[in-house]
Amino acid sequence: MSDPADLAAKVESGELRFHELEEHADADTAAAARRLLVEEQSGADLDAVGDYGFPAEVADSAIENMIGAAQIPMGVVGPVSIDGAAVSGDTYLPLATTEGALLASVNRGCSVIDGAGGATARVTKSGMTRAPVFRVADVAEAEALVSWVRDNEQVLKEAAEETTSHGELLDVTPYVVGDNVFLRFRYDTKDAMGMNMATIATRAAADVVEEETTASLVALSGNLCTDKKPAAINAVEGRGRSVTADVLIPRAVVEEKLHTTPEAIAEINTRKNLVGSAKAGSLGFNAHVANVVAAMFLATGQDAAQVVEGSNAITTAEVKEGDLYFSVSLASLEVGTVGGGTKLPTQAEGLDVLGVRGSGDPAGANADALAEAIAVGALGGELSLLAALGSRHLSSAHESLGR
Amino acid sequence: MSDPADLAAKVESGELRFHELEEHADADTAAAARRLLVEEQSGADLDAVGDYGFPAEVADSAIENMIGAAQIPMGVVGPVSIDGAAVSGDTYLPLATTEGALLASVNRGCSVIDGAGGATARVTKSGMTRAPVFRVADVAEAEALVSWVRDNEQVLKEAAEETTSHGELLDVTPYVVGDNVFLRFRYDTKDAMGMNMATIATRAAADVVEEETTASLVALSGNLCTDKKPAAINAVEGRGRSVTADVLIPRAVVEEKLHTTPEAIAEINTRKNLVGSAKAGSLGFNAHVANVVAAMFLATGQDAAQVVEGSNAITTAEVKEGDLYFSVSLASLEVGTVGGGTKLPTQAEGLDVLGVRGSGDPAGANADALAEAIAVGALGGELSLLAALGSRHLSSAHESLGR
Amino acid sequence: MSDPADLAAKVESGELRFHELEEHADADTAAAARRLLVEEQSGADLDAVGDYGFPAEVADSAIENMIGAAQIPMGVVGPVSIDGAAVSGDTYLPLATTEGALLASVNRGCSVIDGAGGATARVTKSGMTRAPVFRVADVAEAEALVSWVRDNEQVLKEAAEETTSHGELLDVTPYVVGDNVFLRFRYDTKDAMGMNMATIATRAAADVVEEETTASLVALSGNLCTDKKPAAINAVEGRGRSVTADVLIPRAVVEEKLHTTPEAIAEINTRKNLVGSAKAGSLGFNAHVANVVAAMFLATGQDAAQVVEGSNAITTAEVKEGDLYFSVSLASLEVGTVGGGTKLPTQAEGLDVLGVRGSGDPAGANADALAEAIAVGALGGELSLLAALGSRHLSSAHESLGR
Amino acid sequence: MSDPADLAAKVESGELRFHELEEHADADTAAAARRLLVEEQSGADLDAVGDYGFPAEVADSAIENMIGAAQIPMGVVGPVSIDGAAVSGDTYLPLATTEGALLASVNRGCSVIDGAGGATARVTKSGMTRAPVFRVADVAEAEALVSWVRDNEQVLKEAAEETTSHGELLDVTPYVVGDNVFLRFRYDTKDAMGMNMATIATRAAADVVEEETTASLVALSGNLCTDKKPAAINAVEGRGRSVTADVLIPRAVVEEKLHTTPEAIAEINTRKNLVGSAKAGSLGFNAHVANVVAAMFLATGQDAAQVVEGSNAITTAEVKEGDLYFSVSLASLEVGTVGGGTKLPTQAEGLDVLGVRGSGDPAGANADALAEAIAVGALGGELSLLAALGSRHLSSAHESLGR
Repeated sequence: MSDPADLAAKVESGELRFHELEEHADADTAAAARRLLVEEQSGADLDAVGDYGFPAEVADSAIENMIGAAQIPMGVVGPVSIDGAAVSGDTYLPLATTEGALLASVNRGCSVIDGAGGATARVTKSGMTRAPVFRVADVAEAEALVSWVRDNEQVLKEAAEETTSHGELLDVTPYVVGDNVFLRFRYDTKDAMGMNMATIATRAAADVVEEETTASLVALSGNLCTDKKPAAINAVEGRGRSVTADVLIPRAVVEEKLHTTPEAIAEINTRKNLVGSAKAGSLGFNAHVANVVAAMFLATGQDAAQVVEGSNAITTAEVKEGDLYFSVSLASLEVGTVGGGTKLPTQAEGLDVLGVRGSGDPAGANADALAEAIAVGALGGELSLLAALGSRHLSSAHESLGR
Repeated sequence: MSDPADLAAKVESGELRFHELEEHADADTAAAARRLLVEEQSGADLDAVGDYGFPAEVADSAIENMIGAAQIPMGVVGPVSIDGAAVSGDTYLPLATTEGALLASVNRGCSVIDGAGGATARVTKSGMTRAPVFRVADVAEAEALVSWVRDNEQVLKEAAEETTSHGELLDVTPYVVGDNVFLRFRYDTKDAMGMNMATIATRAAADVVEEETTASLVALSGNLCTDKKPAAINAVEGRGRSVTADVLIPRAVVEEKLHTTPEAIAEINTRKNLVGSAKAGSLGFNAHVANVVAAMFLATGQDAAQVVEGSNAITTAEVKEGDLYFSVSLASLEVGTVGGGTKLPTQAEGLDVLGVRGSGDPAGANADALAEAIAVGALGGELSLLAALGSRHLSSAHESLGR
Repeated sequence: MSDPADLAAKVESGELRFHELEEHADADTAAAARRLLVEEQSGADLDAVGDYGFPAEVADSAIENMIGAAQIPMGVVGPVSIDGAAVSGDTYLPLATTEGALLASVNRGCSVIDGAGGATARVTKSGMTRAPVFRVADVAEAEALVSWVRDNEQVLKEAAEETTSHGELLDVTPYVVGDNVFLRFRYDTKDAMGMNMATIATRAAADVVEEETTASLVALSGNLCTDKKPAAINAVEGRGRSVTADVLIPRAVVEEKLHTTPEAIAEINTRKNLVGSAKAGSLGFNAHVANVVAAMFLATGQDAAQVVEGSNAITTAEVKEGDLYFSVSLASLEVGTVGGGTKLPTQAEGLDVLGVRGSGDPAGANADALAEAIAVGALGGELSLLAALGSRHLSSAHESLGR
Repeated sequence: MSDPADLAAKVESGELRFHELEEHADADTAAAARRLLVEEQSGADLDAVGDYGFPAEVADSAIENMIGAAQIPMGVVGPVSIDGAAVSGDTYLPLATTEGALLASVNRGCSVIDGAGGATARVTKSGMTRAPVFRVADVAEAEALVSWVRDNEQVLKEAAEETTSHGELLDVTPYVVGDNVFLRFRYDTKDAMGMNMATIATRAAADVVEEETTASLVALSGNLCTDKKPAAINAVEGRGRSVTADVLIPRAVVEEKLHTTPEAIAEINTRKNLVGSAKAGSLGFNAHVANVVAAMFLATGQDAAQVVEGSNAITTAEVKEGDLYFSVSLASLEVGTVGGGTKLPTQAEGLDVLGVRGSGDPAGANADALAEAIAVGALGGELSLLAALGSRHLSSAHESLGR
């Protein structure tokens, strides 16, 4: 029963269900059958979508109801010299995007950084979080639960860590709102982005809370995690990696390569990224960090929805003895080099470009390195865009690139 | 000179530059040469990245320094019945993602919505923004500029609209911070997402401001736009499309298909999405809208970095005469069906699945329809996740799907 | 029946109710009776509270259950030269506070401003808001209501303005979240702070909405006003007066009077007020604007709870040709010179110090002038504190003043 | 030389300086002389301001350049039954305000709470913060400083605590933004509000940081404290006391005394305080908590500018088995019963009404009790206003009270 048309016919007749095709055929045939059904219903031609370059079985942990693949152009910038704690040396950065001019811009920034001797990057805080919400009877019980948690963190740690061979519970922070108590569990998840690990471990800990106290679990995620939503708690306290990259660029390099001055870049950064974002009620005090985060996420198999938190970044620029000090600090960059989309063929190769596929040595080092590399890419993107704004050719750059 | 190895050698010898290869060979050869160079430098094997299914020339307005493509698994959910202003009928929704369980979850939600008679969706506000920042001498000049803008909006409109055959300037809003004046230009950009159109038109208008007043342009984007950063101005005032989808689900459907009750979903929504997000200092009062936005953006050629604004969404749930009223409102969904990534082969097919490729009739109708379809997808995702949380099988769902 | 002890006894016996005493005695006697009752219940001695300097009847529109008055020390800073649109010349600024060192600090700042030729101040936007929330059946009705409002703003204006002799409805902005539609009404309320005027006028307009559409009013305030809560909508769009004050201070003055440099103040402002506030997830990018707002509010009869919105302020500092440009922009300063606490004796005198008691000529000019004066006071406070931080004597200043 | 006119004349002649009068006369005479000078300059008559009821010397640590006092009407609500950890029994709550209808409203709410058996209140987190900002050379030094702080918290604790007999350093949290490192010191300051204690202790600790590391102090407050600005860090992590009050009100009481239903109040709370505030980009998910905070702050000698943080509050309402569960959680209520304005005569009496003047037993208990009492007052205010909105008589309540 390996003919897509036969499979499709059986779905139409009601004999099979659309999402169960993989139980009756290999994954590529199932995807082909679905394309037939979707083409018929929508009138679309799905040849390109169906022309993917890997066995569909490879994607079975990544997607259901598969019909093929979206192909996002991938390029590289660099090589750029990075002095990180987990990555060092000259590195190409892979980016996948559909936004014309982006790679050219980031490349220009990275080239200038490289010309200035390279960028420094460091992860300054790390931890994946999950924050269930519990219901209690009243504020007296809420206070009692808070006290219990503070006294029993070790018990929760043991319960949580039984579910994982790698993860470590770092701490638990309680928050009270009326009869809601939120417990924010923070884990070291090593080279995994860690959301599933954190979810599973937290479920075990939540079971203990329910057994030992009067609290009742409402939801394993109570939104104080905060996953895939813009939230101050991430911008302030971090989630995943808090990572900063910076560079000191000699005045001559700024003037010759960027056709502007340290003073102009510092002024634009203040007026746009600091004052403008302040007036906008923003959590992102940068120009377009999300562009680089999104493109490197797509190229390396990260979760595209976590670009949201990746954009919680602050760019600073100042004149130091005539030269330009320039930095970008990403508060909540959630990355991993094992699990999830990192196993897909093109994405695994993207990680290989950075030399960070799979588990690091020590554990966590590869994800740290990925975070540092993304921060440097973001630094290049910020530098280039601010310089372009200074030279007033933002839109002309777009025009000459044909958009 | 069409041999990738030759090209690569010339780059290594310094005869050619890495980003200029397309000037010396066809785009596919140039990409192949780059793969050789990157493979050599990084030790990576880039076969999968190089196995893309379209002529590289097709991507030349989407990327520079191309080495190939990232392939993101694409699937569909539905068909789901939508009653929109711009889209109606039974529709498959295409999603591209690497997050296992996502399509299964959204599909379950859409199935329930469909069983309840389908979702309603409407765009309630529309407009792409660009907000340059100007420097003035002092607050007296700032106030004078604000007055001038209020008196000369028609002049700015004419200047802006001369640059575009489609776009219309809707309004200009001034904001003052010290000697900074930000002017937020808002445009109807029809079926284009519109950032480039808005940027070019605003540059023309900014020229007029500089000519006619004492103000000096600092940056064409002063971050009050706000593009690709989490910002309250977008969550409050909207950017791109403000779109809402909702559904009324009979109690019996909730109980039989979701194994929970309207009351339980309403309670979880309040404690998690409203109170939890409130406590997190969030701009996103939802469970995982970004997941659907990201996946549909990737499947239809939208800008992945604009997932950031797409996550400014509020989910509501309430019990209405025993049934479940459920809605999701996305304040700032930036979508287009022409330009940018929509021209790439797999993405164009993704738009075809929805029947919204290219310009709509009337202009803007296709982008409206895309916004409505994404909102319904998000509605399905929210419904399914809240129900799953209610039934406490979030992480077990992940486990059984092999992550 | 004018003896406090008799009255108190009747309350204790249940013959009279605690909050009805003014119906049975003059206001001073009623207050005295309440003091007896509270003293007995709490053991407190309320002699000082009872030693207020005005007939209690004067306060009958300001408070119920009166027992006396809190006395807050009042002082003045200045005179400082102000170049405003509504106020000009040398002006003392009255402040009432219990925070030692505050007036000394503000006075120092104002002295420096004065030495630099005075401050400029302008109101750049004005309007008091009230935003009722309506419930509709679904998103289709929500969209219809939004359209109706856009088509019928004149009808709403007429209904609203029938309730007021002074107020004018400036505009109505709709916001949709699921089956909630919020309409933000913005009024010119002249010299009144205007919340009551706006509430009454909006109630009339809301009646029309209910009559003419399917919408049902849930609450006259739906929190998008936003009154007395920190909210981005106020920081971005303004409420009450948006007012900016600035000054250009010669380098020599900075060095001689403030013992620091323009560069040091600019650096501190960037690191603390811009970057620090950014990292804190703040809507207030200033050092202590709330101190001056609170103190001038108390001295002039404003609503102390609206200090919340008054703190939505951004301070900027930059070096301009060697001198210090310094500004503060308050987005949402809600002030009035008629009504409310402005009628009380000491507060009316506070307004007299500024020459802004009662209605202005033209209407609104006095409230504008008050806003400009507060902005200049805030400018002085910011300048002094940043300079003090620069000189590292924040806490020693407090110590020498005996706290 | 005790004649005010003589003193004033000497100021006018330049013989004496305006702010130095207390060095040449007693405080009352100095204040009188200032009134003469201000009256002459402004044309104001300052008799009421001058009619204060305490020796001016009493205020010398609270104000400089004193001219008299603002008199704010004070009243009481209650008595209301409170079940707190630090306060219990029937208590009158003192409020000072100029907003008519406020006390009547809060009193109605407290009466209903009392009728339901009283409110429960608990402090769930406590700690006053001060967060200096340091400059380092680059991100490598920033990371090193973060490590150093984590390793040397005990050293910082010893340095900090040497400056105070009461305060205890609880923890230090580092935050990195480029070459800025912010250290948020959190202290137990017992019954003092604690800002000065925290500032002085942090200065000592900052000295150690400068001695032992390469970091250079920029400002003792780097705005991550965050003092007197709306900031998510306070709303999320708390500052001063995090305190919650709640009550369970039988349906019959809601219907008879509030003329509405638990369902109506829950619905209004969701639509207004949760969804409305969400849409406003707010940090305050309540109706008017700031009103009660401001009025009780003024009545008890708290810092009026800290009403800003006091408004970071979330109100919840839900139907529990037919009855109304109602709560308010104030994240960052900064209160003290010793120092500052608590020493002034009328304010000290305000504290006496609550029985919390001076140091508690154990230390901190009085400030805890004050926090609990304010939370209960806020609970009453929220309950009354939501009920009034339900019954649609917000503005008519104002009208009948003559405003």
